[in-house]
Amino acid sequence: MATDQSPQETDGTYEQFEERVTRISNVGNAAGILQWDQEVVMPDEGTPARAQQLSTLSSLSHDLLTAEETGDLLDELEGSDLSEEQTAVVREVRRQYDRETSVPGELVAEISETTANAHPKWKAAKENDDFEAFAPTLEKLVELKREYAEHIDPDADPYAVLFAEYEPYLDLETAERVLERLRDELVPLIDSIDDSDAALATDAFAGAFEDDDQEALARDVLDSLGYDWDRGRLDTAPHPFSSGTQFDARVTTRFEEDDLLGSITSTIHEFGHANYTLGLPDEGYGTPLGEARDLSVHESQSRLWENHVGRSRPFWEHFLPIARERFPSLEDVSPEEAYEAANQVYDDNLIRVEADELTYHLHIVIRFEIERALISGDLDVEDVPKVWNDKYEEYLGVRPDTDAEGCLQDIHWSHGSFGYFPTYSLGSVLAAQLYAAAEDELGDLDDDIREGEFDDLNGWLRENVHQHGKQYTTPDLIERATGEEFTADHFLEYVDEKYGELYDL
Amino acid sequence: MATDQSPQETDGTYEQFEERVTRISNVGNAAGILQWDQEVVMPDEGTPARAQQLSTLSSLSHDLLTAEETGDLLDELEGSDLSEEQTAVVREVRRQYDRETSVPGELVAEISETTANAHPKWKAAKENDDFEAFAPTLEKLVELKREYAEHIDPDADPYAVLFAEYEPYLDLETAERVLERLRDELVPLIDSIDDSDAALATDAFAGAFEDDDQEALARDVLDSLGYDWDRGRLDTAPHPFSSGTQFDARVTTRFEEDDLLGSITSTIHEFGHANYTLGLPDEGYGTPLGEARDLSVHESQSRLWENHVGRSRPFWEHFLPIARERFPSLEDVSPEEAYEAANQVYDDNLIRVEADELTYHLHIVIRFEIERALISGDLDVEDVPKVWNDKYEEYLGVRPDTDAEGCLQDIHWSHGSFGYFPTYSLGSVLAAQLYAAAEDELGDLDDDIREGEFDDLNGWLRENVHQHGKQYTTPDLIERATGEEFTADHFLEYVDEKYGELYDL
Repeated sequence: MATDQSPQETDGTYEQFEERVTRISNVGNAAGILQWDQEVVMPDEGTPARAQQLSTLSSLSHDLLTAEETGDLLDELEGSDLSEEQTAVVREVRRQYDRETSVPGELVAEISETTANAHPKWKAAKENDDFEAFAPTLEKLVELKREYAEHIDPDADPYAVLFAEYEPYLDLETAERVLERLRDELVPLIDSIDDSDAALATDAFAGAFEDDDQEALARDVLDSLGYDWDRGRLDTAPHPFSSGTQFDARVTTRFEEDDLLGSITSTIHEFGHANYTLGLPDEGYGTPLGEARDLSVHESQSRLWENHVGRSRPFWEHFLPIARERFPSLEDVSPEEAYEAANQVYDDNLIRVEADELTYHLHIVIRFEIERALISGDLDVEDVPKVWNDKYEEYLGVRPDTDAEGCLQDIHWSHGSFGYFPTYSLGSVLAAQLYAAAEDELGDLDDDIREGEFDDLNGWLRENVHQHGKQYTTPDLIERATGEEFTADHFLEYVDEKYGELYDL
Repeated sequence: MATDQSPQETDGTYEQFEERVTRISNVGNAAGILQWDQEVVMPDEGTPARAQQLSTLSSLSHDLLTAEETGDLLDELEGSDLSEEQTAVVREVRRQYDRETSVPGELVAEISETTANAHPKWKAAKENDDFEAFAPTLEKLVELKREYAEHIDPDADPYAVLFAEYEPYLDLETAERVLERLRDELVPLIDSIDDSDAALATDAFAGAFEDDDQEALARDVLDSLGYDWDRGRLDTAPHPFSSGTQFDARVTTRFEEDDLLGSITSTIHEFGHANYTLGLPDEGYGTPLGEARDLSVHESQSRLWENHVGRSRPFWEHFLPIARERFPSLEDVSPEEAYEAANQVYDDNLIRVEADELTYHLHIVIRFEIERALISGDLDVEDVPKVWNDKYEEYLGVRPDTDAEGCLQDIHWSHGSFGYFPTYSLGSVLAAQLYAAAEDELGDLDDDIREGEFDDLNGWLRENVHQHGKQYTTPDLIERATGEEFTADHFLEYVDEKYGELYDL
């Protein structure tokens, strides 16, 4: 399924290039299915074979991408007359090619081996609350990733190079400016919420909820939002995720007996990811034109649905009656109470994945500041626990008692993923900017949401975000969709208004 | 996961070869997961992307196998001093390499395109009972496969070359001798069953059975036979199959409300396949030492469990009480009646997949005789329906009214799979030979089966068949396991005794 547009370039070079790119993409998508299978349906003891299969696919993909032929085709195409779409495909592949060819294979292998071993060490360290057991591995990973960054661009800030792995087109200065602004404005907002006397209906979803009924309700959620079951499915996974292509974008969620609200919001979040994937153009399958823009844009889609839709007052007016069908015990809960419960701010929570819409970003800012300092060498690994705890005290007014609840809580660093965290916050910020632009064009969406009518909003997202795949860089995509540069204005305005009203500020 | 044995050859050539072989194997196993996913869990509209992914994996695997480096490594290793295991790996890969390199890429592509288009044409022709609509495609496929065979071995009988694709080490003469003997001995046996006055309890499993309860019972079956759930799972598929590796060998089955017996026997059959896969040695994963011998040996494992265990009298003494727990309506059925129902001979059945243990082989013989004549050129495609119907009348005493129930019933020819059918019968015949050898060594197994004790039988199969992977050729494997050459004696003895008693012959 290749793009039909190849007007200017006619000697077959582009077609040859596209065929190669499509092969690489197919290998990646096959690996995606193997990973979904591993998380969702694979029997316990399948791991050794699966690890080998994934490693083979990854090395075949690397070989195809970094082959001399790829470089030759890129060189030739960059000097020729291409359509806009073709130019975009060449730009994206060139970027990946340059990165993958600049890092020596031995270093890639060493990082891969170190992270494979790091995961069980991190897990054990977390279980035993023993940071020192993980510290040497973390130190090694920091060194290796610094070295990795130097190979890609010896003149750049190594953290910026690592960040660009996840977010290639938003520069680090922009990310930093946004995160600093979140910190500077959310810390006082959360403080004033702490001081507020408002009593929210935080126990609206207290109780025990059967898995089977939760699953039925999760399907109701997806039905209601317009999920395309002919191109998707719902399963459970310990850590919910979405994956796939525009032909087959699957959602996973999780059910805990005492956390119905968590399962609903998690399902909506993953719907947002899958819905983005399903909006990518069919005819772009196999090239970057049919692939999602990077992590921040992806997260903007999940957060837009989770927060701007799923944590809104009209959503609960629409959805609570549906939920009551599955759980008659919710009969006594009002939409307003459900709305309040879904937007409670937890000022004493230490755990990122359990955070609310506001404190979440301070969890991210702390990780961002620490990992930046680690990579730059301004912070030693041994000092991480103290700095972590100090920052939690400073920004959130809580101090972890243990490193298990502190700097050992997240898996990311054991994967060597430095520079990943910021994309979570950037995604939320972008969600607010996109939602504001959608309402600018479509008018206030509250009535639609109250009626369970999501076609207009989704149509706007399809037209302005999804259908473009990777044709535009992230800043261009944002500017085309919203008429503005990337900005935190809309997010801050949204939370000020919402939480000001909720907490009588 | 490589074999640890590399005693003689020490310059690293074998290791390099093995790494390449393992990559090919991993790509194939990845494709196996994608196919399982497609049959079992993939959303309807995922097909276009899945077809591309599988085609890419297949072409990558072909490229790796047929690369000059593979040939060079084979040449070098064949002249060097290898262990027995290494010699076997080289033998198997050489065979595949020679076949795949001898067929021009354009012909492979043409066959692949023709079969892709043939499938919907066959399906429509079957639905409309319109053989003429399928005939030109079948003709094209016959021509292409003849051409294909000529590339591989221009001096051989082309049908023998095609048969060797599925059964590389049992020569066609052996297969033919066995099939002719089945025909010559089963036709009169079935005739005398037709004439018998014995009244079997054929309606023992009449009734309606809920899917959920059937699934619970299918899990009971697998539990009872000793299926390893840590390395497997049970799902449903329209056409049940098993697939996977020794780390993850999955079973599928199907449930029809009025066919409880069919679901039980189908589950046992697929257990047999998966159980073979699970018995392959872990340390052989990635090379032929960890892969199953070919189709006949695989089918011998499914048929051994399905027929010699699952259709035996002691099995129903063991299993009926378990089935009654799920289906209290079976309270009035005796083990003897269940045994009779499971062994009813259908003299008027036209459909292969619904055939019993005896008439099944005549369905196969008919297909074998017809496809042989097609490939040799002795039979024209246009004459297939008539010849088919004549043979049904001659061997089974029934004549199809329609081609949909006649020569259009099976999918195989639309796949271009000529030479596949015989392996079904050869597998059943081998099952009897292996079962007889197991009883020779372990003693009569009826008591074990009656007690639901399958460890000894399975241990014997593990030791004599499963653990060897592809180390021995099929004739060697059979001779080592049974002390005899491949023979139909045991099968014919088994059916004579069993059906003689059942039908008072």
